Amino acid sequence: MFAPATVANLGPGFDVLGLALEHPGDMIEAELTTRPGVEIAQITGDGGALSTDPDRNAAGRAAADALRRVRAVDNTQADSHGLRLWLHKQMPLESGLGSSGASSAAGAMAANELLGRPLTKEDLVRCAMEGERAASGSAHADNVAPSLFGGIVLIRNSDPLEIVPLPVPSSLWIAVAHPHTALSTAVARALVSSHHYSIAEVVRNLGNLGAFVAALYAGDLSLLGRSVEDALVEPLRAPLIPGFAEVKAVALAAGALGCSIAGAGPSIFALCAGEASATQTGAAMREAFRTAARVDCDLFVGRVSRQGARVV
Amino acid sequence: MFAPATVANLGPGFDVLGLALEHPGDMIEAELTTRPGVEIAQITGDGGALSTDPDRNAAGRAAADALRRVRAVDNTQADSHGLRLWLHKQMPLESGLGSSGASSAAGAMAANELLGRPLTKEDLVRCAMEGERAASGSAHADNVAPSLFGGIVLIRNSDPLEIVPLPVPSSLWIAVAHPHTALSTAVARALVSSHHYSIAEVVRNLGNLGAFVAALYAGDLSLLGRSVEDALVEPLRAPLIPGFAEVKAVALAAGALGCSIAGAGPSIFALCAGEASATQTGAAMREAFRTAARVDCDLFVGRVSRQGARVV
Repeated sequence: MFAPATVANLGPGFDVLGLALEHPGDMIEAELTTRPGVEIAQITGDGGALSTDPDRNAAGRAAADALRRVRAVDNTQADSHGLRLWLHKQMPLESGLGSSGASSAAGAMAANELLGRPLTKEDLVRCAMEGERAASGSAHADNVAPSLFGGIVLIRNSDPLEIVPLPVPSSLWIAVAHPHTALSTAVARALVSSHHYSIAEVVRNLGNLGAFVAALYAGDLSLLGRSVEDALVEPLRAPLIPGFAEVKAVALAAGALGCSIAGAGPSIFALCAGEASATQTGAAMREAFRTAARVDCDLFVGRVSRQGARVV
Repeated sequence: MFAPATVANLGPGFDVLGLALEHPGDMIEAELTTRPGVEIAQITGDGGALSTDPDRNAAGRAAADALRRVRAVDNTQADSHGLRLWLHKQMPLESGLGSSGASSAAGAMAANELLGRPLTKEDLVRCAMEGERAASGSAHADNVAPSLFGGIVLIRNSDPLEIVPLPVPSSLWIAVAHPHTALSTAVARALVSSHHYSIAEVVRNLGNLGAFVAALYAGDLSLLGRSVEDALVEPLRAPLIPGFAEVKAVALAAGALGCSIAGAGPSIFALCAGEASATQTGAAMREAFRTAARVDCDLFVGRVSRQGARVV
């Protein structure tokens, strides 16, 4: 099972807009057992940071919630089965790229696949949101929904959950730079939730969010780029990311359509028209992180993943 | 020259989303004069409420701004000409239906037509925003842009101005009930601008606004209806409109897709699937205003105007 990394809080769409990357992502191996419940046999690639206690692990909690939901649909299946998971982290933690979301998505989908797919994709998003709650304390959907659905998705509402998949222009590419600096998602989130916003700030994001969605349907990359503007959250979080202003400036100078913080940061994404532009933009962003903040970074350049989580 | 009334602050789109009604609207007759400047010969239908001083009249200010812009493009034209206007108000004032916006749109367009159309529609929006400034003290575009463009429009940004016309589903109808109660736009606006918004309120509107735009492109009336939800402004302004809760409840019970405040109020609009639903919804809203608030109201039922302001 592979579940892709994601860029949530996409541009003006805090908590409502996210996209799936082609890579990186998380891999989960899973098998049915005869002992009810979820067991995590092994975690690799996390440097020892994640708990193998299934109650305190995003993939474990998401898989357990999936078992619970399957039981509610068809108790003959899940009652007699449990799940054993091997979680292979193939992406950085606390990077802003939805690491716990990818694990949650993979865990939920693994359970559903092995039990014969009784749950819908929206059900799996709900399961994966429980995994997010285990990892971050809040059950937001803007990472797990694109990781499961693929593409670019809008969360119209999180309770009750309503997901709106959006069209993806074929020439859209993304460059993501992940600097090797720590940034706590909890701190980044508290900054946003403790702030109160003026109507002028809100109106700017409403205008940009509407234009972002219109640009996706119209395939208008120029409008899409202008709409990657966030008056609400970027100004609060940018100071937490060393070199942010410089990296954004060089990305736009290199021809990116738009640039902002990925998820809660510290990664920075840039939307680009085509592969060459994304490659050039990514290289410029990496160089700017080095010169402006003296940090190295990983670079991920690719299209939006159309598939989302899947059996591999 | 006819310029239609509009519903701005459409659902979740405070200051960014508006639509043009087929009727009512304002009518302007205009002629070129040899005396530079704008003269207002007559105003009918306003009950004496509007000033004939062109500097203090929305249509006069918009027309004057159009002359100024024409002069900047081609000084041989506008230098030797002035404009005389007859303004026929055919819609209620301070109703929430963009009365000053319609007058502004008609004034700007009249000047442009008589001088040979040197200005673009976006230019005319800028002129009409000056008319709005004369009438309300602030130069917002979400009434004048739909009045000039027709259809449903998004204001991505007001400075610099960027307008995004959106698709209109063919079966979309609107019922608007205008109760005969006074509500000051200035008071309604101050309520909104003095308030500070939590991120949870903002996120609800971002999700709904994105879904509203997606629903227009997808022609999904059910999604459109669910997205007519405003967590930011409707809760603040609804208490200013006697009977609001009852009127909204009966509109939804009568089958409306969604229902909220038109502009700054006191009018209430309902989006409906088809003519029969809009007629039935409108009748129910009128009856609810009578029984819940003991006020009569005008009812306007129609489609979205595709044309916007035009020579008639």
